Amino acid sequence: MTPIELALREAAAAAARGEVPVGAVVTDESGAVLAAAGNEVEARHDPTAHAEILALRAAAAILQTPRLVGCTLTVTLEPCPMCAQAASFFRLKRLVFGAYDPKGGGVEHGARIFAAPSCHHAPEVVGGLRESDCAALLRDFFRERR
Amino acid sequence: MTPIELALREAAAAAARGEVPVGAVVTDESGAVLAAAGNEVEARHDPTAHAEILALRAAAAILQTPRLVGCTLTVTLEPCPMCAQAASFFRLKRLVFGAYDPKGGGVEHGARIFAAPSCHHAPEVVGGLRESDCAALLRDFFRERR
Repeated sequence: MTPIELALREAAAAAARGEVPVGAVVTDESGAVLAAAGNEVEARHDPTAHAEILALRAAAAILQTPRLVGCTLTVTLEPCPMCAQAASFFRLKRLVFGAYDPKGGGVEHGARIFAAPSCHHAPEVVGGLRESDCAALLRDFFRERR
Repeated sequence: MTPIELALREAAAAAARGEVPVGAVVTDESGAVLAAAGNEVEARHDPTAHAEILALRAAAAILQTPRLVGCTLTVTLEPCPMCAQAASFFRLKRLVFGAYDPKGGGVEHGARIFAAPSCHHAPEVVGGLRESDCAALLRDFFRERR
C-alpha cells in the first residue's frame, strides 16, 4: 500500500467515526511508514487533533527527536495553517497532499505558511495526488451531514 | 496572581528546564484559571508542545469541549502561526500576549493568521501586557545559551 492509499484508508476510518475524513502518514527516507493517523478532533474534544499533527507527533515519538529530517508527510487534504506551521517546525523534507482546500488550506491558499519570510524551513510540496479520491471522501461526508 | 503573572511564572519554570521560556494560561469567563503550561518542546521531543497548545488542550479536556467559548488565553509571547490558528479553532474569546515576536509571531507579524480571509474566528487581541518582563525572560535565556 502506498502512503496516499494508507492515508485514504485512515481518512475513511475517520469518517466512519464521525470525524472529518482526513488521513495522514509519515514515512522516513527509505519510504517506511513511521506513523499513520486520522482526524480525532471530535473524539478528543481537541481541534488540534488533526491527522497531520497526530501523525507527526507519533513519528517524532518513535524517533525520539523533534526533527523529522528526511521524512515525508502524506495527507489527503491540503494542511491548514496550524498543520503547515507544525510541518515546518518538524523540519519535514516533503509534504504530499491530495485535495486542495481553498477555504481552510494554509499551503497553497490563505496564510501560505511556507511562503512567509518568517518561515525558517519549508518542505518540498506536491499537491493533487489522488486528488479526486481524497476530495470525494470529504464531499460524501459533508453531503450526508447536511 | 493575575493570569500574566502566572504565565510569567510558567515561562520562568520552562527556562529552568532548558525550554524556551514561554508560558500560557487559559481563564474562563469569570476569570478562573482553567489551565497553565510552559513550553515542553524539548522534554516531549515535540515542536507542537508550545505552551499555548498545551494550555488550550488542557482547558478543553477539563471542559470536555473543543470550543473554549468566553475563554481568554494569556501568553508571554506573541503566538506563532500554529498557535494562532489553534486559538481560532478553539473559538477563544480573547488573546492577551506579552512580548511581540517580529521573527516568529503569526498574529501581528508574518502570516497574521486572524487577518486572513479564511480565518473563521478571530479572538480579540491585546498585545504588549508586561511586555518588558516577558521579553527579558527570553533575552536572558538566549544570552546564556550563546
